[in-house]
Amino acid sequence: MDQALEARQVDVAGYVRELGVAARAAARILARADTDTKNAALRAMAAEIRSHVAQLLEANRADVEHAQAQGRDAAFVDRLTLNERSIEQMAAGLEQVAGLPDPIGAISERRRRPTGIEVGRMRVPLGVIGIIYESRPNVTADAAGLCIKAGNACILRGGSEALHSNQAIAACVRAGLKAAGLPETAVQVVETADRAAVGALITMTEYVDIIVPRGGKSLIERLMRESRIPMIKHLDGVCHVYVDDRADLEMAVRIADNAKTQRYGTCNTMETLLVAAAIAPAFLPRIAEIFRSKSVEMRGDEATQRLVPDAKHATEADYATEWLAPVVSIRVVEGLDAAMDHIERYGSKHTDAIVTNDEARAQRFLREVDSASVMVNTSTRFADGFEYGLGAEIGISNDKLHARGPVGLEGLTSQKYIVLGHGEVRG
Amino acid sequence: MDQALEARQVDVAGYVRELGVAARAAARILARADTDTKNAALRAMAAEIRSHVAQLLEANRADVEHAQAQGRDAAFVDRLTLNERSIEQMAAGLEQVAGLPDPIGAISERRRRPTGIEVGRMRVPLGVIGIIYESRPNVTADAAGLCIKAGNACILRGGSEALHSNQAIAACVRAGLKAAGLPETAVQVVETADRAAVGALITMTEYVDIIVPRGGKSLIERLMRESRIPMIKHLDGVCHVYVDDRADLEMAVRIADNAKTQRYGTCNTMETLLVAAAIAPAFLPRIAEIFRSKSVEMRGDEATQRLVPDAKHATEADYATEWLAPVVSIRVVEGLDAAMDHIERYGSKHTDAIVTNDEARAQRFLREVDSASVMVNTSTRFADGFEYGLGAEIGISNDKLHARGPVGLEGLTSQKYIVLGHGEVRG
Repeated sequence: MDQALEARQVDVAGYVRELGVAARAAARILARADTDTKNAALRAMAAEIRSHVAQLLEANRADVEHAQAQGRDAAFVDRLTLNERSIEQMAAGLEQVAGLPDPIGAISERRRRPTGIEVGRMRVPLGVIGIIYESRPNVTADAAGLCIKAGNACILRGGSEALHSNQAIAACVRAGLKAAGLPETAVQVVETADRAAVGALITMTEYVDIIVPRGGKSLIERLMRESRIPMIKHLDGVCHVYVDDRADLEMAVRIADNAKTQRYGTCNTMETLLVAAAIAPAFLPRIAEIFRSKSVEMRGDEATQRLVPDAKHATEADYATEWLAPVVSIRVVEGLDAAMDHIERYGSKHTDAIVTNDEARAQRFLREVDSASVMVNTSTRFADGFEYGLGAEIGISNDKLHARGPVGLEGLTSQKYIVLGHGEVRG
Repeated sequence: MDQALEARQVDVAGYVRELGVAARAAARILARADTDTKNAALRAMAAEIRSHVAQLLEANRADVEHAQAQGRDAAFVDRLTLNERSIEQMAAGLEQVAGLPDPIGAISERRRRPTGIEVGRMRVPLGVIGIIYESRPNVTADAAGLCIKAGNACILRGGSEALHSNQAIAACVRAGLKAAGLPETAVQVVETADRAAVGALITMTEYVDIIVPRGGKSLIERLMRESRIPMIKHLDGVCHVYVDDRADLEMAVRIADNAKTQRYGTCNTMETLLVAAAIAPAFLPRIAEIFRSKSVEMRGDEATQRLVPDAKHATEADYATEWLAPVVSIRVVEGLDAAMDHIERYGSKHTDAIVTNDEARAQRFLREVDSASVMVNTSTRFADGFEYGLGAEIGISNDKLHARGPVGLEGLTSQKYIVLGHGEVRG
């Protein structure tokens, strides 16, 4: 770290403000950059990353050794570690974003009004995006690529444990911007481990338009309390599958199995299985056998325990828990209304699915369950930007405003009104 | 005020929470109400209002007399006062909203993915909307109508000076809801003058999904500091007209006149006139003559003062001021870039217009000016939900997320993902 930067740390807020001023200026240039220029920058970033594999690995090794010396656990070190494959994935990801359609400038809903004016909506960048993430260094490249493609500047604040890795990746990103003639300040990394930098970033309303946090629940909770800037975020993924009594039994078993066991640690993994009483005797023993064979701990209500004797007793708190682990909460419910009541009470508005062959019930579930993704006859694991065809994903939102569900490039943009007149005035 | 309510005021937060619980329950019913039922409720509300003109006038008289006794100024009393015409406008407004298309349930962007799942987006209500407004009682009916049509429940917190009027209007609204078989708790009025009720409403994140403030700058500033719930709001309307040197002179005069003088007190009124140096000698004396004849005070830079000798000197602060009065700030700028720099620095991202016959400059202005409404060759006064064809307006937003510019029914809704499967699971 250079001396000038050390001196500036005396005033972390001032340092972060400098980043904000530079980002705002860069954002104005990015907003009018054409598609070819942005794509050239993304491809140049990818080339820089591929030609700096050794340097990236070396920088990462310093972070990894430091983390190990500090006694960080294996999962943490695993998230932090780069290898040749994950570096190639970063480069390929940037090229993939270059290949996506450019959302900026598209005009929709254009119409002529009785007064003669023409009114439409133009898709424009949000401006400056603050990304706050934990130890995964690949977010540096992934997030920068999406922000640039959508015409935004960004300020990246990764975990302090990944600072060397992030700086090395950011150097490649800046070189790519420069090669395409775009300002290097379009992507800036907060180069101080001082946590006050986060506090400054999330309250700098005049220079940052939106915050995208990527990390665990404690990070998100802190930001929710302290941020004065809107966020694209989700706190919890307490996802449900409701097996209706008119479900296809084979399909229900397949979906419940996949939703729980395909991956345990993801936010779209099923955490609670709701089963209609009429189908429970046929369904629960079968899915329990699968869960048992995969060492998934089952916690159920009394009705569940009667059918699955090795299920533990589920508490109120269990039903509100995002396990992110081989544990599943189970509850036998009377039917659709009870299932929706349960989801309303314990869910996190993330992703919920019904398995049923009854079209009317499917329609009610789709319309009435107030979650970002609502599904019929498929696995909650599909709630994902790539699976939805967005091409890429900056995160998943379970808020109701702006972007809801998996957020791709469009979520990093806004629509403004444009009005084309011919001298009309208001009477 | 009844005794039970008085007792509850001991715990204002608890009282507001009760409203929140009831609103959340009502919102689930409203979300699945069909279009005919919602329209029937709106029309029944209008009929109730028309058959209770005498009662509404009487309730309003109590508020008006109280305000006068407290020495409130004429403008305040004017905003507070209902008459037969404004009451009829409330009723007609509700019927007009009944005639608008129902946004709820529409599915867009439906597509089949390679995995077999079909992904689409369904438009759904936001849930519970908190409206915080000042003395105008008509907002009670207008806001309730828009919320109901978009399938939401709402909690209305009007100015304490209008409490009797608001309660009388709310009684008509509830009667209309009841007549259509909808829960009366879909529209609730906060029946306490205690300002702590506002503090409770804007922090009750589990029961309120969005806050819509309607009022002056001090109200909005307070809510921005304290609200934990997203808002649809604008703080300032510092709107600009830039007269380019390639403008049609007659058109520029007509637009600048209309943008400033058609109404002085509205947020889309021009507050600053920017003039390209090359056209200033031809343009400024002509518009100055009109402003002079309408007693509009002019404040300009030195270049302006040379052409308009009676213009006062404009300070930095003047350029950042929303006059809402017959005052206009004027500045001579070198050209398009300087005009956009000025707007970026002093503007409020509300509404800005360019007058030019140069297509390339118009396109740059449209794309690069980062405001909710950007206009070419027309008056900023057109920035309005009715003029844009939205049918009605809950407010104007100059935030970039969710709704931007005039906000109609669509701004009171959200889009969630729906996924239709046939037993697909993720591999």
